[in-house]
Order: sequence, then C-alpha cells, then structure tokens
Amino acid sequence: MIRFENDYTEGTHKRILQRLIETNEEQTPGYGMDEHCENARAYIQKACDAENADVHFLVGGTQTNTTIIASILRPHQGAVSAVSGHIAVHETGAIEATGHKVLTLPSEDGKIQAVQVKELYDAHWNDVTHEHMVQPGLVYISNPTENGTTYSKAELEALSQVCRECELPLVLDGARLGYGLAAKDSDLTLTDIAKLCDVFYIGGTKMGALFGEAVVITNETLKKDFRYFIKQRGGLLAKGRLLGIQFETLFEDGLYNEISEHAVEMAMIIREAFVKSGFSLRYDSTSNQQFPILPDHVISELSKKYSFSFWEKVDATNSAVRFCTSWATKKEHVEMLINDVKHIALKI
Amino acid sequence: MIRFENDYTEGTHKRILQRLIETNEEQTPGYGMDEHCENARAYIQKACDAENADVHFLVGGTQTNTTIIASILRPHQGAVSAVSGHIAVHETGAIEATGHKVLTLPSEDGKIQAVQVKELYDAHWNDVTHEHMVQPGLVYISNPTENGTTYSKAELEALSQVCRECELPLVLDGARLGYGLAAKDSDLTLTDIAKLCDVFYIGGTKMGALFGEAVVITNETLKKDFRYFIKQRGGLLAKGRLLGIQFETLFEDGLYNEISEHAVEMAMIIREAFVKSGFSLRYDSTSNQQFPILPDHVISELSKKYSFSFWEKVDATNSAVRFCTSWATKKEHVEMLINDVKHIALKI
Amino acid sequence: MIRFENDYTEGTHKRILQRLIETNEEQTPGYGMDEHCENARAYIQKACDAENADVHFLVGGTQTNTTIIASILRPHQGAVSAVSGHIAVHETGAIEATGHKVLTLPSEDGKIQAVQVKELYDAHWNDVTHEHMVQPGLVYISNPTENGTTYSKAELEALSQVCRECELPLVLDGARLGYGLAAKDSDLTLTDIAKLCDVFYIGGTKMGALFGEAVVITNETLKKDFRYFIKQRGGLLAKGRLLGIQFETLFEDGLYNEISEHAVEMAMIIREAFVKSGFSLRYDSTSNQQFPILPDHVISELSKKYSFSFWEKVDATNSAVRFCTSWATKKEHVEMLINDVKHIALKI
Amino acid sequence: MIRFENDYTEGTHKRILQRLIETNEEQTPGYGMDEHCENARAYIQKACDAENADVHFLVGGTQTNTTIIASILRPHQGAVSAVSGHIAVHETGAIEATGHKVLTLPSEDGKIQAVQVKELYDAHWNDVTHEHMVQPGLVYISNPTENGTTYSKAELEALSQVCRECELPLVLDGARLGYGLAAKDSDLTLTDIAKLCDVFYIGGTKMGALFGEAVVITNETLKKDFRYFIKQRGGLLAKGRLLGIQFETLFEDGLYNEISEHAVEMAMIIREAFVKSGFSLRYDSTSNQQFPILPDHVISELSKKYSFSFWEKVDATNSAVRFCTSWATKKEHVEMLINDVKHIALKI
Repeated sequence: MIRFENDYTEGTHKRILQRLIETNEEQTPGYGMDEHCENARAYIQKACDAENADVHFLVGGTQTNTTIIASILRPHQGAVSAVSGHIAVHETGAIEATGHKVLTLPSEDGKIQAVQVKELYDAHWNDVTHEHMVQPGLVYISNPTENGTTYSKAELEALSQVCRECELPLVLDGARLGYGLAAKDSDLTLTDIAKLCDVFYIGGTKMGALFGEAVVITNETLKKDFRYFIKQRGGLLAKGRLLGIQFETLFEDGLYNEISEHAVEMAMIIREAFVKSGFSLRYDSTSNQQFPILPDHVISELSKKYSFSFWEKVDATNSAVRFCTSWATKKEHVEMLINDVKHIALKI
Repeated sequence: MIRFENDYTEGTHKRILQRLIETNEEQTPGYGMDEHCENARAYIQKACDAENADVHFLVGGTQTNTTIIASILRPHQGAVSAVSGHIAVHETGAIEATGHKVLTLPSEDGKIQAVQVKELYDAHWNDVTHEHMVQPGLVYISNPTENGTTYSKAELEALSQVCRECELPLVLDGARLGYGLAAKDSDLTLTDIAKLCDVFYIGGTKMGALFGEAVVITNETLKKDFRYFIKQRGGLLAKGRLLGIQFETLFEDGLYNEISEHAVEMAMIIREAFVKSGFSLRYDSTSNQQFPILPDHVISELSKKYSFSFWEKVDATNSAVRFCTSWATKKEHVEMLINDVKHIALKI
Repeated sequence: MIRFENDYTEGTHKRILQRLIETNEEQTPGYGMDEHCENARAYIQKACDAENADVHFLVGGTQTNTTIIASILRPHQGAVSAVSGHIAVHETGAIEATGHKVLTLPSEDGKIQAVQVKELYDAHWNDVTHEHMVQPGLVYISNPTENGTTYSKAELEALSQVCRECELPLVLDGARLGYGLAAKDSDLTLTDIAKLCDVFYIGGTKMGALFGEAVVITNETLKKDFRYFIKQRGGLLAKGRLLGIQFETLFEDGLYNEISEHAVEMAMIIREAFVKSGFSLRYDSTSNQQFPILPDHVISELSKKYSFSFWEKVDATNSAVRFCTSWATKKEHVEMLINDVKHIALKI
Repeated sequence: MIRFENDYTEGTHKRILQRLIETNEEQTPGYGMDEHCENARAYIQKACDAENADVHFLVGGTQTNTTIIASILRPHQGAVSAVSGHIAVHETGAIEATGHKVLTLPSEDGKIQAVQVKELYDAHWNDVTHEHMVQPGLVYISNPTENGTTYSKAELEALSQVCRECELPLVLDGARLGYGLAAKDSDLTLTDIAKLCDVFYIGGTKMGALFGEAVVITNETLKKDFRYFIKQRGGLLAKGRLLGIQFETLFEDGLYNEISEHAVEMAMIIREAFVKSGFSLRYDSTSNQQFPILPDHVISELSKKYSFSFWEKVDATNSAVRFCTSWATKKEHVEMLINDVKHIALKI
C-alpha cells in the first residue's frame, strides 16, 4: 500500500533525525528553556523578519489552536471561522471545551473574505440585543485552507485591515504553512504573514518534523502569560528541546522551504495527471492536497494499491477524494500513481 | 554542569532511538491506528495481566491527567487528591479548566489513606446541604508520589476497596511508575495496579522515552468514547506511531524494568551518601527522587557543579532540595557527586 | 406606548400576586424544600400524568436550558438544535460556556424533523474519523418554536422514536409551552410531551408568573444529582417558595390553560387583522407570537403608538416584525391595534 | 416552629411588596432597561457616592459571584479566598465550572488579611516555575464573612492597597452587606467600600427583597461588556423591573439601613442571652448571624421549638450552631427564644 492519505505517514526528515541522534545525550533544562529552543526562536524571528515576536513551541495542531484561541478570548466571545475551518469541524469541540463558540461564515473554498468579517461584525453590533449573542472576538483562518486553497496577499491585507478596524485579532493556522507559501500562485511570504496576523503558527508535524508547531505572536498585547496557557492546555513538553532541535533544523538553512517545494511539486504532477485524464477537481488547490472527483469504480480500483482519503459524495456515482503529498513523498510513487490514473482513465 | 534536576534532561534510551531510526521511513496510518501501537497495547496488556484493558497513548502528563479526569467526572464532581498532588499544584489549574474542583486531603508524605477518603465521602453525604458542595467523583493518587514515596500493596488494596464501596473510580498517575515499582520496599506489581485501579497510566517521558504516557483503563464503564476525549484535549498525536514504537520497545522485553532498576539503584547510592554524611531527608523516598535537607551554603557549593531543584526552606539556614536520577544517570556522575558530598560534609 | 414587543412586559397574574401577598409572612425552609414547592410538584406531575417525574423549579430560561443540557452531556458531546434555536442564537454562548457545541440543523420554520436527526446521527457514526468531531449527545427543540410554530403529535412521536433509537435524550424548551398547547392546530397535550420527551420545562416567566420555569424529568437515568446542577449553575433560589407558590397557583385549578387560551385568542385576532389587510406572514404561527411582513413606512407609523420587535429585513422596503400577546394582553389594546392596522392598510 | 435557620425564611418587606402590587400592571421593557432599574441605579450610585459606578442587578448570590469572577479572570488565573469563603465551599464548584481555581488562604474567623495576600502573591511570582501554577487573579472577600465577622476600615484599606499594588482586583461579596455595615463595631460605610473595592455587590435576597443582588463596578477596566456575562451566566432576568423596583424601594429613603439595624439589634439580644447564660461563641460575630456553642442536649431541646443550623461539632458533647436574624425577625420570637435559653441554662 502506497500512502497518499495524509502528510504525516512517515517519521521525520533525515536531517532532523540525524540531529536528534547527535543531541540525544545532551543534558538540557526542561520545558523549552534550553539552547535549541533559543536558537530555533531566533531563526524563526529572522525568517519572519519579526525580531520582537514571541515564539513558543507546542506539540500538535488541535492543542495549538485551542491554546491560542483560549488565550485571546474573553468568555462571552467567539472565534470567527469558515464553516469548514479545522476548529469548526475536526477538533471534537476543543474550542467549545474552553467555553467559546465558533462563529461560522459560509465558504465554498475554505477561505473567508474581509467583507464577510465586516458584515458579521456590523450585524452583531447593530443588533440592539447584542448582549444576547456571542460577541465576535477573533478571526481564525488557515493558510493553506482545509481545501488546499491559499490566500493572496491582497486578500490577507484586506482581512488584516478589517480585523484591525474591528479590534479582532487575526489568527492564522499554519499547520501546512510551508506548502501554502510554496504554492505557485501564492504571493505571500512569512514576513507578510507576521506583519498581517496577530498570532500564527508554523506547522512542523505535517512539514517534516516528528511533531511540533511553532507559535509566533507578533501582537504585543497577546504575549502576556502565554506559557501559563501552554501548560494549562497540556502543551508544555517536558523535553522541550525536542521541539527546539526540530525547528532549529527546519529553519537554520532553508530546509523548511525545500520540503515545501518538493511536496508542492509532487502535488502538481498528481493534479495535472488527473486533469489531463479528464477528471475535474473539487477545489482549485495549488498546494499539497489535491481533490479529484472520481467515479466510484475508479476509487475502488485505485484503493487496491494506494491509500487516500474519501472527501465527499458528489453525485450518485462520483466522489471527491483527497491525495496528499509531503516532504516524504517519493517521485517513483507519484509516477506509479499517475501511470495508473492514465491507464484507468483510458478504460472508462 | 551535571544535571540531577529532573528525570527528563536527556533525549531517549538508545534502544528507543535505534527503533525510531529503523522505522522512520515506514508509512503508517495516523492517530494511533498503526501496528506499532497495536503491538505496544498487547505488550502492556500482557505486562499488566489485563487482556481486556483498553490502552491509549498520550504525549504528556498534564494532558493525560486532564483527559482521564475530565472523561470520568460529571460537572458537579471533583477529584480527591493529596494536597501535594500534581493536579492540585503543578498543572496551572488544568483540572479546573475542565470545570472540576480538586478536593484536597492533607498529607505529610504525598500519599493519602483509605480512611481519609472514607471520611471525606461520609462528610459529604452526611451533610444535609450536600448539593451545595462539590461531590467527590474520583480519587487521584500518584505512585510514586511527588515526594518519592510509594504505596504498599496493603495501602492500595485498602484504598481500592473504599473507592469501590463509595463508587469512586481510583485513578493512578504513574508518570514515574517504573521507579516506584522498582523501589526496594515496594511490594506492588503492574498486575496489582491493574487490578486495584480503574484507570492508571504508565509514564514514558520520565522513564526513557522521548515523550509519551500509556493510559490503561481496566474499568469497563470508563472505556467508552475515550478517543474523543484524547482528541478534544489535544492529545491525539498525528504520528501516533511514535508512541507505539516507544512503548513497544519499552515493553517487548523488559526494558522498562531495566531502566527503572538502574535509576533506583543510582538514587539509593545518593541517598546513602547524604545519610552517611549526616544529612537528614525531607521524605523517606525509596524511588528515584531524593530530598536531602542541606545547609544553604552546602547547596551553594554543590550548585556550582550540579543542577538540582530547590524544594522548600526548612529553617533559617537549611533547605530541602531534590536530586533525580533516571534511565540516563551515569554511574560516574553519581560517584563524583557522592564524593563531593562526603568532602563537603567533612568540612562542616 | 402599548407594548406588544414581548410576553413579559407586565408583572404577574393577579391570582399569583394575591397568593404572594397571602403567604408573604410564612416562614419556610429554603431552596425549594418547602410545602408550596411540594404542592406545585404534585400538581405538575398530575397535569403531566407523570407521577414518577422529578420536578424542579428554576428562575429563567437560559439558566434552565444550560442546567439541563450540561447535566446530560459528556464533554465530547453536543446538543442538536435547529439553527434558529434559542440555545444556538440568543443565549450568549451559555451552552458553549459549559463546554459543549450546539450542532445545528437547517430549519425554515423553527422546527426540526426526525429524519434530520437520523441523518446527522448516521453521518457522525458512519464517518471513520468520528472521534475528531463532536458527538451528538441530545436533541433540543422548542414548542412553540422561536417562530411561533408548533410540533404536531405525529412529528413529536417521530422525533421521540428516532431519539430513543439513537439514545439521544429529547429535551423540550417550553418557555412558552402553554401558548403552544393552546394553538388551535396543536393536537399535543402535556401528557404527550411527558411521554415523548426525556426532559422538558414548563415556562412561567412568559406565562403569567413573575419568573420561573418548571423542569420535568421523566427519564429515570437523567434524574440523578440534578439539584447539584441547579446550584452550580446559579439557579437554586434561596426563597424557593416563590417558585412553588407561583406554579401552585398556575396549576392547582387550570390557570395555566386559561392564560394560554387568552393569549392565543388575542394573537389570532391580530393575525387575522394583518391577513385581512393584505399583509403576509413570515411564519405560519398559530401561537402567541405573530410575524407580519410590513412595508417599512407602516412599521414607522405603528411604532408611534405600539412597541413590537423588528425581526428581519425581507426586501428593500419590507420587513418582518413580531407582535406578542400574553396573559396580560388587554382586549381593548388589541382592538385599537387592529383598527389602526385596518386604517393604515387602506391608505397604502 | 420558629425559624432562625437563615435570613431568607420569609417573603419580602411589606414596603417592597406594596410597590410590587402598585407597579404590577405597568408595561416595561425587559432585561433591566426599564425606569425602575434606572432609578435604583441612581439611588445606589448616590448611596455609594460613586456616580460613575456601573450598577447591574442579578438574581442570586452564587450567580453573582460566578458572573463577577468569570468576567475578571483570564483562564490561567484563580480567585484568592479565605478557605471558608462561600465560593470555596458552598457553591458546588460554580467557580471551577467557569474554569478557575479558588486559591484558599487559611482563616480562623472568615477574614483574610493584607499580609496573607502579599505573601501568596510573592510566593507565586518568586517561584521560577510559576507558569506551572495558577496565577492569582483577584481577591474575593465577604463582609460580613460566613462567620458573621466584619472587616474594619483599616483592614479593608490595607487589603485594598496590597491588591492595587499587585494588580489584583478586590471583589467583595455583600450578600449580607447591610448587616455587616450595621454591626456596632463596624466603621465602614458604603462609600468606603465603593472606594476600596473594584467590584462588590449589595445583597437583596437576605436583606428584605424577594431576591436580587446589586453589583457595583467602580473599576473602569472591569465594566466592559458586563451585560454579556450576566446573560451568559443566566442572570439577565426577563422582567428586570422586579429587581429595579425592589432596590428602588430599599434605597430611596433608607429602608436598607433600617432593615439592617433591626436585624443586628435582634442578633445582639440573642448573643447576649447566650453569653449571659454561660455559653461561649464560636466566632465573635457582631452582625446578624450568631454562633453559640451548646451542649448537644440543649440543641435537641431548643430544636423542638426553633429551627437553626448545625455548624460543626466542637467536642464529644458540644456543637456550634447558627442563629440568624433578619429584617423579618419578630421581637416576640426573640424574647421567647432568650427566655427559653435562660431556663435551659438554669437546668444544666
């Protein structure tokens, strides 16, 4: 079975593994107070051109979203999100478990636009009984989105501007951030994101690390006491060095970008193969997740050799599925896949 | 600086590291559904002589305690704990953040006794206004405790019996479980613990793993939907295989015990050195944490070469400190330490 | 200003007031343990033909919904509700503040149907990653709904059956229950509701009491420890007798029905007046809330003399508004209103 | 049975009842936006000499404490309280249910002192691992305390000063505030309390109202969005006018003080009777709760005719009990009681 079901099917990039081996016997203080974490913080600040940003390391995505959001909101406030946002759908109510509603906005492609945020904000404050409703307290987006789409710089600038006007911190979930930035049609950089968002995180788990997410807080007022929140939400890793070592490796000389580009290149080959074979795509994704719509018998056929995710039924005989690439995707597997797709398509 | 400040200053046991290297390129499904996790579950069930137990893997201790406790209690119930219990003191209110009070019992040595639980239970139910107070909903203990002490089999049996009479699930925090079981005066086994507790966890982070805690649920009624709780509390590791691989290695042929015995042996040498040099011990710990009471100038002297934890002031000129050993503690470091202690003592 | 803006603009029904005066100097125990509460419980059990039901008295609707829902759900579960349900929209996230997501179903008229619940339930359990999503834990409905519509006996039976098949307690918010039961097209009785729901409440605040909601729990497994929940959520009134006295008066000899019928009769007169004058209705409400769609200039005109609620814009020049009647609505005010409506309509 | 068991055994003061009768048919807007609430706010601001204070009305004490505390704290913070504080003991974990730990300080008499707060604050911030512990976030006191004792002006000034130095809002639970201010040895006024505290509430339920607590927020930074919190915690009474009318009556011409003085006068007669008869007092209470220590047979004897609360066992044959007086306590009942006490004492 060749796995394209997600971007965390393998262990870690060999350079990270090597570094873990080399440092294994070092003695370090716990909880992220070690030198590797210090180095990693400095590399990330530099990569973001944000010297004053606070950088913290957590273990996984749900934990990171929960910790960030719960640190920002007051109890009567909610997080504005696309209806398809990870926090709205796939975190078992982790946000609600901290007491907060997710206020959803409709979205066809996983993105939300500045005008939607403004309308929701105005609708709340123009309602004379607004205290009977959850107050919007922050805006949560992902880049790339759950659907593989990415924000343009113009879109993010518009969102950022509305958020600042409305005093709503803008939080960006970057679980797959590298893959989004590496998308051919993306004109965003880490520096842009650091400038336009109040808090965001740079995903490691899906980007070549064993695990780990690097939170970057650029908004001064949101920095206070963040380590308490990490601890309370169970994210303060005893051997914090493990996070430091991994992000050090990813950011000291461009490995993060290298990984991102490889995955996106592989994804584009897959995309092209499906399109050339006459299949349509559920979303116009330019990052590492591809969502072809396939006849159910083709899905069955491909499933014998490849694992990938069922996404949704499209009609009586067709469904959308998801293929993911990653830092670990092998060129020969991709070639095998596109050959098989081509042959199957010819038989239809 | 030679570090005795805690039991997580190094990376991981070399056999675990080796296994991580060997498996790094394997493709596996996520979230703990892989073969390594399956194997590790079976090894642990066997080690506990509890074939029907559910075994789940989480990342860290605070997360594990929170997930277990929040999965058991109804909203009006609290967790009974020693006043010095980890959940009562050192988890930044993580239990309260899930809505539950920690109901504390006094304790000199970190342990609580059956009679205390019974008294608290009776006091609650005999009060005519009991619905104005938090209802005891489970009993939380650690073995070894925060003070390095361990429960005898008779003590644990008595606690277990009272808990069952009172319908209070007994939860055991085993962050350092191996070190407790390896204590010379401990007559407990994993099998006893599995029989006497309703849920417990076998610590990995402090016992040679990079990270990871294995939750064992033996009480049938507490098994339902536990994976939802892990996800909601941010503990469902995407690359769950990492946990499986580590616990597989720890439990396939006795490594867990081996590690435990080494650490306790090192701790006993340290203990003996302090006692022989005329220092008293804050707690009568027989596991891997030792708490000598030292003159403050001795503490200063030792601090130049060794790191260890300040515990508490005992009087104007003396304080208790904590030395930890672990799977990684080197014999030569221990010998260096006890030599230095001996010399310092002679100078007093 | 004549107020039709809601059904709680006056104090309390004169018979309740009289009874409060008569009992004012009685000395009673607190927290609902007095004889008036006992009597009221017995009257309500009888009215529901549910001798074994537990009956509790709380102060207001948000508190009651929160207390019921938080008492039933485990942390990973959510409450299924119409997207327009009170808990989904108008309680400032009170349900989320107890840690639970509201899982919304689309609804045009405020009701949800059995088939929707079954589909949501199946969709959850058929998803292989269901533990990444909030598990449906109960179904919440209102009768009458926020839109004044009511469930037929057949609809409620179907819902109840699906809920029991899916082991989802069915919770009915009866803040305006009497007005719903008094609707001409309603074939439901209190007895039906007690048989078909697991927990429901009989509203007092909007039904002639100063305040107060009577919770009826018929499902044996949901009765346990409910008083703890009332206390924890701030609903255990010190002078609980006030609730007992009010519900005693409402249920000892039919006052609750009498009030309900009066309000619905007044509402039907208003409805007919709008319809006869050529205005359409936003919802086909047969209970005490009426939602005519009016030209904005008519709304302005009527607003000079009457207060009523803005509901929503329908198009550029028309909006839906809400007129409420209640136990306190005076016939002469209704006649004044319908005369004015008639005259205004003629001028259009 | 003559009841001294608490201060809420009767309905409401006759002047409040009269006003409720007079206003019963008035039509008012809901949720505290009516004229009576406006008037009551103005009267209270004046009584506190705090024109800029925000005044809100809630229904009961637990709800009020919960709403205030949850509005102030961030998730990692706790409320500092005497170990005997109402929020620490008698609210079924309502504070924890909002996610916050109650950080308890020892207390013999129900009060806490400035120095204790400072020590706890310093201990937290001096601990290098402070982010592993709950951060003190506010200080909660009651006046009078659960034990009937009252703060002197000097004590409250010292507390206030420490709280301001430490940036810990000082919250005062005034469920029985009038009775505390009327204590002969109290040198505090409402004006002092408004100056020295950041938020406090003036109890109505135990002070002659049917129910109701008036929250006074003097600290500008704590005012924002408070109505959302009231709604979310279930405290926004639909017929808010009921609260306005009651507090209007209590504060328009001194009724609140009148009631307070009467209750304290009655309590002092009871106190003196017990003392003169040779019984000692558990606490040196000068307000409306008295805590004599009585032989168990005397308790049995008195229980035949009077209801009062068991407080705690003092030794094998003696217990402390609580007698409460209130606005409603009748002189002839007090005289009957003290006569009976005198006779019983003579027989011992």
